[in-house]
Amino acid sequence: MHRFYAEAEGRIAGEELNHLMRVLRLAPGEEVEVLWAGRRYLARLTVVTKEGAAYETIAELDGHEPRCRVTLYQGLCKGEKMDFIVQKCTEMGVCAIVPVMMARSVAKPGKTEQKTERYSRIAREAVKQCGRSHVPEVRPALSFAEALEDMRRRQRILMPYEEGGAPFAQAIAEQDVGLLIGPEGGIAPQEAEAVLRAGGQAVTLGSRILRTETAGLVALTLTLHCAGDLT
Amino acid sequence: MHRFYAEAEGRIAGEELNHLMRVLRLAPGEEVEVLWAGRRYLARLTVVTKEGAAYETIAELDGHEPRCRVTLYQGLCKGEKMDFIVQKCTEMGVCAIVPVMMARSVAKPGKTEQKTERYSRIAREAVKQCGRSHVPEVRPALSFAEALEDMRRRQRILMPYEEGGAPFAQAIAEQDVGLLIGPEGGIAPQEAEAVLRAGGQAVTLGSRILRTETAGLVALTLTLHCAGDLT
Repeated sequence: MHRFYAEAEGRIAGEELNHLMRVLRLAPGEEVEVLWAGRRYLARLTVVTKEGAAYETIAELDGHEPRCRVTLYQGLCKGEKMDFIVQKCTEMGVCAIVPVMMARSVAKPGKTEQKTERYSRIAREAVKQCGRSHVPEVRPALSFAEALEDMRRRQRILMPYEEGGAPFAQAIAEQDVGLLIGPEGGIAPQEAEAVLRAGGQAVTLGSRILRTETAGLVALTLTLHCAGDLT
Repeated sequence: MHRFYAEAEGRIAGEELNHLMRVLRLAPGEEVEVLWAGRRYLARLTVVTKEGAAYETIAELDGHEPRCRVTLYQGLCKGEKMDFIVQKCTEMGVCAIVPVMMARSVAKPGKTEQKTERYSRIAREAVKQCGRSHVPEVRPALSFAEALEDMRRRQRILMPYEEGGAPFAQAIAEQDVGLLIGPEGGIAPQEAEAVLRAGGQAVTLGSRILRTETAGLVALTLTLHCAGDLT
């Protein structure tokens, strides 16, 4: 079934309307799925005009949201890698993504507004595709110190780190977990120490060295698995 | 430390030599890592000339190979997705990749030799990058019937399937596991039934719908985790 974002409750407009009318040529009476305010609904189109489409809600659907909310603190890396991370981690169920300027980040944060808009579009598309209801927020880039402050608000901080770390062995009971992934060059020792002092826990993703964009997805998979969310 | 593939025991030549001499300008006496015959060595360069470089082996290094050998049977999908799958699954520790022409495959197998050479190059690069020693074989595409025969040789077959499947909950004791991932359109019901009849097991990767190139990496991660290989 086709999925659309509502612009307001009961109303589809803009690009979504364009897609509904011109590409799919849907007519009143047809059933669609609607994403609105972080929820997912089964709905029936009642009006379709150039000005907007209206729908009536039939039922709320399962939003397929993990119980465990994972915030990915991603060491800033090159553009196409960030695109990949946003897309794949959204599919997999990430709650929010925070780019972090780290000691070994080569990439620059760039024009924040443009970037944020681009990532937000990628996340929205991925949400539509995978059938979940919450669009992860991709926040503007933070400095490492700011990110560390933000991480302290999480119930648990996990940091995949090459220099030894515990395997993902135990159940994760916390519902608000932060994951810190280094940029291309990895996490600098002083950054790792700061995270450990802040109560973070070093974990391992196995003995092979993963690219930064692979590490986030793998760590997210293992976190949601250990939280019992992949059932 | 820089890593090179040997062309023969004790000898580095071709593109690898070019990289060693012209890009990195390494000289005799310098230590390098050498990948040869599926093993990884610490070595010292003894001769560097345009005709070839010679080295003496100092010690064998850990090859970082998982104990559990996972063969990924990947429903044939579009080119850039296959590139991604080969790269990411090699990093993560896949043993072999078999493209499979499935009922819902949109992509065509293409010129087998060219494809195989391309995938092999991607896999070799990924092996160098991640520090493992075995280059996964990317085999020529098989029909679904051929792939099913091949799967029967595995000790266990896992098939992520949307229509209900068991979570990755128990330890995987087998050392030779096959993973079947559908193409963009998913696994057709008659294919799923054939796999179940062949002794395969349906598993779930969570309730969100993953793109085909994401599903393979996520399933490989969970398989190696349950096999105790991510420690």
